Amino acid sequence: MYELMEKLFPICRSITGNGVRQTLSILKEEIPLSIFEVPTGTKVFDWEIPREWNIRDAYIIDPEGNKIVDFKQNNLHVVGYSTPIDRDISLEELQQHLYSLENQPTAIPYVTSYYKERWGFCLTHHQRQKLKEGTYHVYIDSELKEGNLTYGEVIIPGETNKEVFLSTYICHPSMANNELSGPVMATQLIKWLLQQKQRYTYRIVFIPETIGSITYLSKHLLHLKEHVIAGYNISCVGDERAFSYLPSRQGDTLSDRVALHVLKHKHPKFVHYSFLDRGSDERQYCSPGVDLPIASIMRTKFGHYPEYHTSLDNLQLVTASGLQGCYDVFVECIKLIEKNDYYQVNCLCEPQLGKRGLYPTISTKETSAQVRTMMNVLAYSDGKRDLIEIAETIEESAKNILPIIEKLLEARVIQNLNNGVLK
Amino acid sequence: MYELMEKLFPICRSITGNGVRQTLSILKEEIPLSIFEVPTGTKVFDWEIPREWNIRDAYIIDPEGNKIVDFKQNNLHVVGYSTPIDRDISLEELQQHLYSLENQPTAIPYVTSYYKERWGFCLTHHQRQKLKEGTYHVYIDSELKEGNLTYGEVIIPGETNKEVFLSTYICHPSMANNELSGPVMATQLIKWLLQQKQRYTYRIVFIPETIGSITYLSKHLLHLKEHVIAGYNISCVGDERAFSYLPSRQGDTLSDRVALHVLKHKHPKFVHYSFLDRGSDERQYCSPGVDLPIASIMRTKFGHYPEYHTSLDNLQLVTASGLQGCYDVFVECIKLIEKNDYYQVNCLCEPQLGKRGLYPTISTKETSAQVRTMMNVLAYSDGKRDLIEIAETIEESAKNILPIIEKLLEARVIQNLNNGVLK
Amino acid sequence: MYELMEKLFPICRSITGNGVRQTLSILKEEIPLSIFEVPTGTKVFDWEIPREWNIRDAYIIDPEGNKIVDFKQNNLHVVGYSTPIDRDISLEELQQHLYSLENQPTAIPYVTSYYKERWGFCLTHHQRQKLKEGTYHVYIDSELKEGNLTYGEVIIPGETNKEVFLSTYICHPSMANNELSGPVMATQLIKWLLQQKQRYTYRIVFIPETIGSITYLSKHLLHLKEHVIAGYNISCVGDERAFSYLPSRQGDTLSDRVALHVLKHKHPKFVHYSFLDRGSDERQYCSPGVDLPIASIMRTKFGHYPEYHTSLDNLQLVTASGLQGCYDVFVECIKLIEKNDYYQVNCLCEPQLGKRGLYPTISTKETSAQVRTMMNVLAYSDGKRDLIEIAETIEESAKNILPIIEKLLEARVIQNLNNGVLK
Repeated sequence: MYELMEKLFPICRSITGNGVRQTLSILKEEIPLSIFEVPTGTKVFDWEIPREWNIRDAYIIDPEGNKIVDFKQNNLHVVGYSTPIDRDISLEELQQHLYSLENQPTAIPYVTSYYKERWGFCLTHHQRQKLKEGTYHVYIDSELKEGNLTYGEVIIPGETNKEVFLSTYICHPSMANNELSGPVMATQLIKWLLQQKQRYTYRIVFIPETIGSITYLSKHLLHLKEHVIAGYNISCVGDERAFSYLPSRQGDTLSDRVALHVLKHKHPKFVHYSFLDRGSDERQYCSPGVDLPIASIMRTKFGHYPEYHTSLDNLQLVTASGLQGCYDVFVECIKLIEKNDYYQVNCLCEPQLGKRGLYPTISTKETSAQVRTMMNVLAYSDGKRDLIEIAETIEESAKNILPIIEKLLEARVIQNLNNGVLK
Repeated sequence: MYELMEKLFPICRSITGNGVRQTLSILKEEIPLSIFEVPTGTKVFDWEIPREWNIRDAYIIDPEGNKIVDFKQNNLHVVGYSTPIDRDISLEELQQHLYSLENQPTAIPYVTSYYKERWGFCLTHHQRQKLKEGTYHVYIDSELKEGNLTYGEVIIPGETNKEVFLSTYICHPSMANNELSGPVMATQLIKWLLQQKQRYTYRIVFIPETIGSITYLSKHLLHLKEHVIAGYNISCVGDERAFSYLPSRQGDTLSDRVALHVLKHKHPKFVHYSFLDRGSDERQYCSPGVDLPIASIMRTKFGHYPEYHTSLDNLQLVTASGLQGCYDVFVECIKLIEKNDYYQVNCLCEPQLGKRGLYPTISTKETSAQVRTMMNVLAYSDGKRDLIEIAETIEESAKNILPIIEKLLEARVIQNLNNGVLK
Repeated sequence: MYELMEKLFPICRSITGNGVRQTLSILKEEIPLSIFEVPTGTKVFDWEIPREWNIRDAYIIDPEGNKIVDFKQNNLHVVGYSTPIDRDISLEELQQHLYSLENQPTAIPYVTSYYKERWGFCLTHHQRQKLKEGTYHVYIDSELKEGNLTYGEVIIPGETNKEVFLSTYICHPSMANNELSGPVMATQLIKWLLQQKQRYTYRIVFIPETIGSITYLSKHLLHLKEHVIAGYNISCVGDERAFSYLPSRQGDTLSDRVALHVLKHKHPKFVHYSFLDRGSDERQYCSPGVDLPIASIMRTKFGHYPEYHTSLDNLQLVTASGLQGCYDVFVECIKLIEKNDYYQVNCLCEPQLGKRGLYPTISTKETSAQVRTMMNVLAYSDGKRDLIEIAETIEESAKNILPIIEKLLEARVIQNLNNGVLK
């Protein structure tokens, strides 16, 4: 994952344009990605696909002739969707087009202006403070024209047409946690999913944030509402600090129950956010009337780490082990979603486990923890509780009781009532 | 309010009689009050209207000929509903008819005996301790005879016949917080309500406590059960110490939800009582089978301040600012009841606020609190939550989000689904 | 109770055999017990009645000819269901058949092997450590043969065929709290129940644990599911340390509500276990599909006191006053179950208690606690709450409000709506 991220890092992405195309084309070398384009002007619910933006170069020349702010050194230096410009300008006028962060003086901020035409440059506050009076030359070689919004999609068919939906975005320039950690995580999950047969169909999309998810929903809403049983928005999954959970708007969907159960057992110190803290595509997936069961599992949440939306969100912030830790959580969640069935004991009263070699033949003062857990699984395999609820009730991790359930199924002591999804 | 209270203070009220008539007639100068009389002997549920009680004078003459306890100085000196008497009496016998408070030796207690004939005097414990052996003369010029129970009613028609019901009582003699604060508050609210068009019809009653509310319910129960959507009992609303909330028996009616929301945001240190702490007409309004949605908002609750039911509950205890503070709470509650509708966003996914000038055109690192609140209102305007629930969910005061809702309605981003009350 | 326990203590009980028969025959001298036998090999749900085990004698002779472990001194010395043996044996081989507790070196542990044939001896760890090399003689004069499982039953008919079910076990050898406290408590409750007419029918069983309850359920399940409205498993009810409550699997049955209410008021420091802490016949009574409303009220719970399942669980651990304390709880629970009806006030608004002599005729500053409780009972006698819920709502013990309810019934202020059980 980390290598792929290094490869994708330098590209200047935005919500439209060649940066997105280039990113998707690199991902297509890894996974069977279908790529779609939606023309400028297409109505998508309350929105409209904007013009396509591309940029070749941009810089500021100082009064002494030095190139002091250079898009080619860091693509965050230009305000996203800046209109072209090529002229001399006084420092006073220039200041009105500059963006810096006073309390993070070494960071270049990330700024965009998608829906109003303007131009601007971003720079560190230290650099800004050094600017002297005089005439500057500003140059932005960009283009805003009729074009397309581009996104990618992978569909992995399962035994059933019920779907698990994963969404990540590909619209930020060179930032690592709040951009690339998402697509590389999704790519890795796709590779893993392709290695085995799944019960559910998996739909994974790589889209520009907000306008992309709105576009995708406008094309697929009815299908998604009918088929999606669970899913996650994948964003900010690569640093090593926290684990975070942000619920779906409804808060108690399968996605929520699984994510909470896994995080509680695997990373009990995870931060539990409210839907009021949302900020990414869950805003669309969970909006009234859309109401898909989409929750978010993150490392440190967007907006909650100082490097967020600045040049400091770089390849040092995200680590291979940060990515791996979150990948393990997603894999465990998916495994649980796949196995979350209802189980029922096959006889009245406790089954006699002893005659099946599942219970000690001698009764002494103590019962082993494993035997207790097995007895507890049996006590709550009443056909009314799914795996997650059994696990929550007996205060065990679902991961640990799955092998016990396998043993009990094999011994025909319980049966799998399925979950109503498979016919 | 305070001036009106001063005017009403000296009158000797009881559950029947000329004190009540005089009080209602003063209120009628202020508001369009209808006055009703119900004859002695009328059956009202399990009760019967008692005989009417009037008193002209009462005093005790001590062995030395001094008038030592004088009704004309303080009408609390006579036990309410005392039968007439005019005779000499030993101190020993007199003591059996005296009431004082050992642990509040400077207070004249308030004592009544509505349903059993007796006579008695109330005095400070200090005064009682000074009584010497000898022959006293007791004189009570009162009358208990067939007559009427008197009460007042104001009905302010609204756009709909659904009603908000306010009740206050007018049966205590010269006491300020636990009596007059209620009727003057109700009077002021009526004046305010008369100044504008309301959605709901307002029904406000001025009744003697217990027997009055039982009488009123016996005449109007079916109408009230069909029409009343919210309401409050108004009592003890004038001191400056606490704010108190006493729920309806059901506990989660619109009246409760509104009162709790307003108090939580406006006076977060308010005291939250249980229905087990009830003591005024909510006992009748919320009794089994009656079950009206009546809660109570008070300053310091009856029974919970030392001056309660004594001569110390006087015009010093209640202040203009104490009354005003509670008046503001009632006004805010009524405004919320009037506006408590269901709202629904008009499109799927987030509406594009930017094109309507409701969202910043440039995206930097931070979102303003106001924009977040607007986005939160939109996220929960799902047609299933009323204003109070939206406010509770997004952890904002309903008062603060009402202007945002107005803006969103005006921009046609949301619609008002109403609340099912208006046709 | 304590005397009966002393009489039963020496008998060597197991899940089948003459120890059980002898125990039931002693109980039959006290109560009208019906005794049943179920033959070896009978299928009971997933189980089968095992062969019957009887033992006459057992001991170990040490190399010097001393009888060092003697069944006749303590019947815990033999592993329950040991097969017969009579031979010389090396210490090394003997060790594989010995059971002792390293961390309770003065206790003989209680060990059984019902469903796998083996033999063994239990002894204190101190004694085991003193064993020297040499040849030992082991002798067990036991018999495992086709026979019967024996259990007892008492049915006390009530006014209705709805039943309260009590279950206790009689399958442990000489142990006091975790065995005999149960049957002597059940015996005492039967004697008390026989002294008066009850509304409900009482069914009390004396069975071997696990196999006995499974056997009983296999014969009576449909009847029990249709008729049992509440019940308790009676085990570990005789020491003086704690009070404990272990809920039914469902957790909110009448048995649970009554037990919790009584313990909360009578022994507020009781230990509240989870169904995950179960271990006795509630495992069968509450298993999925059986789901009887059976909770457990105990003194110190099985498995939670050091003497449990050892020779230290003796007649010193259980005391007459320990038994009496728990007996009082059971009696109060049964009385509450008998009286747990729905009550409804007979008029709208508060009834006028004064005219019935139930309310003070003079109104002063304070209301007595008793009057308040009566008013609270009335406020919640809405026909929708049973006695337990009224008591919980008004924060009083049901025991204390029962006399108030009697008074209100007598005064015809409320009526008993019954609880749907009696026709």
